[in-house]
Parts: sequence; structure tokens; C-alpha cells
Amino acid sequence: MSPTPSLGAGPPVLAFDVGGTSIKGALIDAAGTAHGVTRLPTPAAGPTSAQAVLDAVARLAPSLTAQAPEGVAPTALGIAVPGVFDDEAGVGVYCENLGWRDVDFRRLVRAGFDLPTVVGHDVRSAGLAEMAVGAGAGAQNALVLALGTGIAAAVFVRGEPVTSGGFAGEIGHTVVVRGGEACACGNQGCLEATASAAAIARRYNRARGARVSGSREVLAAARAGDAVARAVWASATDALASAIAPCVGLLAPEVVVLAGGLAEAGDALLAPVVARLDELLTVTPAPPVVKATAGENAGLLGAALRARAVAEAGSR
Amino acid sequence: MSPTPSLGAGPPVLAFDVGGTSIKGALIDAAGTAHGVTRLPTPAAGPTSAQAVLDAVARLAPSLTAQAPEGVAPTALGIAVPGVFDDEAGVGVYCENLGWRDVDFRRLVRAGFDLPTVVGHDVRSAGLAEMAVGAGAGAQNALVLALGTGIAAAVFVRGEPVTSGGFAGEIGHTVVVRGGEACACGNQGCLEATASAAAIARRYNRARGARVSGSREVLAAARAGDAVARAVWASATDALASAIAPCVGLLAPEVVVLAGGLAEAGDALLAPVVARLDELLTVTPAPPVVKATAGENAGLLGAALRARAVAEAGSR
Repeated sequence: MSPTPSLGAGPPVLAFDVGGTSIKGALIDAAGTAHGVTRLPTPAAGPTSAQAVLDAVARLAPSLTAQAPEGVAPTALGIAVPGVFDDEAGVGVYCENLGWRDVDFRRLVRAGFDLPTVVGHDVRSAGLAEMAVGAGAGAQNALVLALGTGIAAAVFVRGEPVTSGGFAGEIGHTVVVRGGEACACGNQGCLEATASAAAIARRYNRARGARVSGSREVLAAARAGDAVARAVWASATDALASAIAPCVGLLAPEVVVLAGGLAEAGDALLAPVVARLDELLTVTPAPPVVKATAGENAGLLGAALRARAVAEAGSR
Repeated sequence: MSPTPSLGAGPPVLAFDVGGTSIKGALIDAAGTAHGVTRLPTPAAGPTSAQAVLDAVARLAPSLTAQAPEGVAPTALGIAVPGVFDDEAGVGVYCENLGWRDVDFRRLVRAGFDLPTVVGHDVRSAGLAEMAVGAGAGAQNALVLALGTGIAAAVFVRGEPVTSGGFAGEIGHTVVVRGGEACACGNQGCLEATASAAAIARRYNRARGARVSGSREVLAAARAGDAVARAVWASATDALASAIAPCVGLLAPEVVVLAGGLAEAGDALLAPVVARLDELLTVTPAPPVVKATAGENAGLLGAALRARAVAEAGSR
């Protein structure tokens, strides 16, 4: 995993990234360096989970501020959350994992935080970090794919994330194999049911009667010559290329960045995806497909970037 | 076909739409009404075709100006051209039909026209017209599909067309059927080889030993109960939905507009595309899929919109 890059000079801020199991928090100083990355367990899903998440962030904030180098006081706070999130409206449209729907986070944070606070989507936050200091730096039109338990994308056009009410980038349910793997969404052959880290492990376990816990072990088995593992891995990379190709045809991005746990496979993932994409793209030039470089704290850095934007807007 | 709508008030301009067989020209007056829509044959393809096209436009321009209502003098000139065209650079990247490659139209029109002149892509020009006065009016994020001999899209994000060096919107070569119809691009099962008006006629003719000249006759045969025609039509609408679905997943547009000759089929096209799209989209809300309403002169109107923008920028 790449180390956490510096965001460069800007207002010091607090940043939080809310995941399914833990909330990460850090102080980002005026030089853009993350300090004291800390984790709290994510509150249980339920009807009050949104408020519980914000309460947990509010509890974590003072200890992060206390760890700050002398003279550094955060000027704003950014929070990245999962699910379908409308960054422009500040509304958590839907989050299956944490159990909320149509939550007005903008209103909640106004009431609950002393610092100017902004909430944004986790995948788009990680994408913002890739575009600012990672593998997408310098690009105007780009796709940043988050390949983990699920699959989603952050879409950038003219340097800005596309939100579309929170629904932009939901590429995980592109049907890549007709009549393929059953997906939780009700369809068959979705990208996420075929090529996510979870799907790769699940498909291998079923075919092999094995009990591996992640895609990393499937890749290791493939490297050791396991034909079943090889077939599962190949179908996953093929599915990824099949789902990326129409996105490239539509937007012709300058770069496609692969992020998330699955991207840690590096060339074992990139090489077959690039090769298949080259076959599929006959008119649109194939863009570089590269591994993310903003590190495992990319979501946190993106939340910090949003907070810095708020701090800068407020100080004008 | 819908009548040509008015563009509304703005500078009077000349507009041209360069097609494979003819160049259409018109004067758009200060009320936004198109006058004297006139056609010239498109010059033959070849190494000097770009200049020949501009010469033909320059010859047509005075007669259009002469037809203008008294006191109306065009203030700028817009030209829509086919192929891969980089609107931002003013460069004709590639046009198979007309035989040009890497032509600096911006330089050529500066030398060859007295009026401020702008050249843009034909599909994006028609899209601009749909967004301004047609079925996309009011939308910020939208797809306008041109379904004719070929298939391409104009992509709008935050109200502006996405260009990506001219390559945005090349959805015709999305592979929708693995091992399907051979496509001119070298792949098999491309959208364009399956569902374009030309492909529908070609596939029907081959399967039926018939010699129809267009998709309209295939639709008529399907309506008359011809099982082969029905199967070809159904596979085409299915292919369209399969290619639109990943675009909707990626961008979650507010509307998808179907334009071009094939869209004239109306509900016979829209209804099965909408039904299949509803099946394919489980997470992203299915956007309205509607027939274009900017009419057969949409490309011309889009060229006029570009010319008006140039006229307004110049008068500031």
C-alpha cells in the first residue's frame, strides 16, 4: 500500500472517513501532513445511526486537536461517508450498511459542530485525493474505481467530481455476464458479483470447496498454479475490462485509476485488464490504467480537501 | 419528424451541417427562426476534402444572407462536421467518411471567412440543440444518442458538452453481444453492428434473404408479424438498452434522448428500450428515455448556437 502523501500547504483541518466497521480520523496540518490517524468502531446500523456516527466523530475530534503540533488549530472538519451520498445537497440518500435513508447531514452538522463541517461521499472523497495528489493528478476527465467488497467509481469531468444526486459512479451493477453470478441487487452477472474482492473469494470458495477469506488468497493460489483460482481471477479481470470499456467509450477519460483492496494486486490485476481493454477499445484510444497512489487514507485525505475548501471559502 | 423549433432571441447567424452526402445551410434570424434551409452535395472524400467542404460553405453563405429578411445581417457562422472532432481545439481529428485527419479547422476558417466562424462536432451540435430547445431542455447531466447509420452520443455534464479531445460519446463500439455481429472496427458484437439503422436492415436482409433499404421497412415487417423482423428488432432494442445501462450507471443522467433516423420509430423503439433498461438498472434510478424533439435540423441549430456564442463573445 502506498504511504499517505502530503496534501501540500493549506488550512489545517480535521478529517474523518466513516467505514462499515471503523471511523478513521486525523488532523491534517498546514503543510498537508496527516497526524495521529486514529480509529473508532462505527456505531451499529439503525434508524439513528447517522446521528450516532456524527456523535462519534464529535467525540474523536478534541483528542485529534489535542495531538496537533503547537499553534495548529483546525479551521474546518470534513467527513466521508459510504452509501449513495449527494455531495451537492449534503444528503445521505441511502446507506444499506449503516441503515440510513434521506438524512440531511448538512443540517445535522450545522447543529452538532462548532467548526465549519462538510460531509461527502467516501468513494468521491478518495477520488478527490487521487486527483489532487495521487495517480489522477493533472487529469481533467478521469475515472477512479474503488475495488473492494463492492465496486463503485468516482467520475471526474473538467476536474470536478460528477455527483448526479449521489448516483454517479454506480458501476458495480453493470451486467457483464448474461445469466452470470446472482447479485444482491436482484440481477445476474453484475460486475460487483463477479469481480469484487468479496466475489472473487466467494466464487473461488464455491468452485473449490475452499474457505479463503479474501481475493488475496485466490491470487496467491492462482500464482501457485491452481487452475480454479486462475479461472476465477481471469473472469474477474475480464469483467472489469468489460465494465470499464463502455465508460471509456462514453467519456474518453485521460486516465483510469484502480483503487481499493483489490488494486493492491498490482500488475496481476492491471496487466490483464489493460490487455482486454485494448481488445475492446477500437475507436476510443485506450487510456492508461494505473494503480492508485493516494494510499489507504485516500478517503480521509479527500475529506480533508473538502474541509480545506470550506475553510478557504469561509475565510474569503 | 418534429418541426424545427425556434432558438429564441439572439444574434442572427449562418449555420451549416456537413453530412456524408449533403451540406445543409440556413440563416437563423434574431428571433431564432431558421430561414431558407438549403442543401449542397458534400464534396468527395479525399486529402483536400476539408478545404473543399469549407469552400462549399463559403459559396452557399452569400445566397443565404441574400435571402435574409431586410435588415438582418448574420454576425457569425457555425459549421457542424462529422467524424471525431475536438470542439475545444477546433481540430478535425479523424473523419473516415470525408477522408480527413488532424485538420486544423480553426486556422482554415480564420483564413477563409470574413465572419467569425466556429466549427464543431455534428452529434454534439445536435445535442446542444436538444439541450437548448429540445427534449433535454432543463437538464444538466444528459445523454443524447444519435441513432442512424452509425451510433454515437453527445454527453452533457453540468450543462456543458464533454469533448475529451473529440472522443467522448463513442458508444457505438460498446460490445453488447460477445461473439456477435462482425463490426467494421474489427470487433464483434458492437452496438453499432447490432442496432444501428444500417445494421438492422443488413441483419434482416441476411436472415430473410430480403433486400430492404432501411430499418423502417424492418419495423414495418415486424408490425406485420414477420418473426425474423421481430427478432432483429428485439435484439436491436435489447442491445441499445445494454449499451445505455452502463452509461446511466456511470453518470446517472437526468434524461436520455434518442435522436436520429432510428428514433423516428417512436414507441416501437422507446418502449422495449425502457423496459429492458428498467430490468438492468437496479441501483441507479432509471432516467426518462425520450424521443428527440429538436427536429431533423438539430445539427444545424446546434451549429447556430455555437455561432451565436461566438457572436456574443465577440460583441462583449
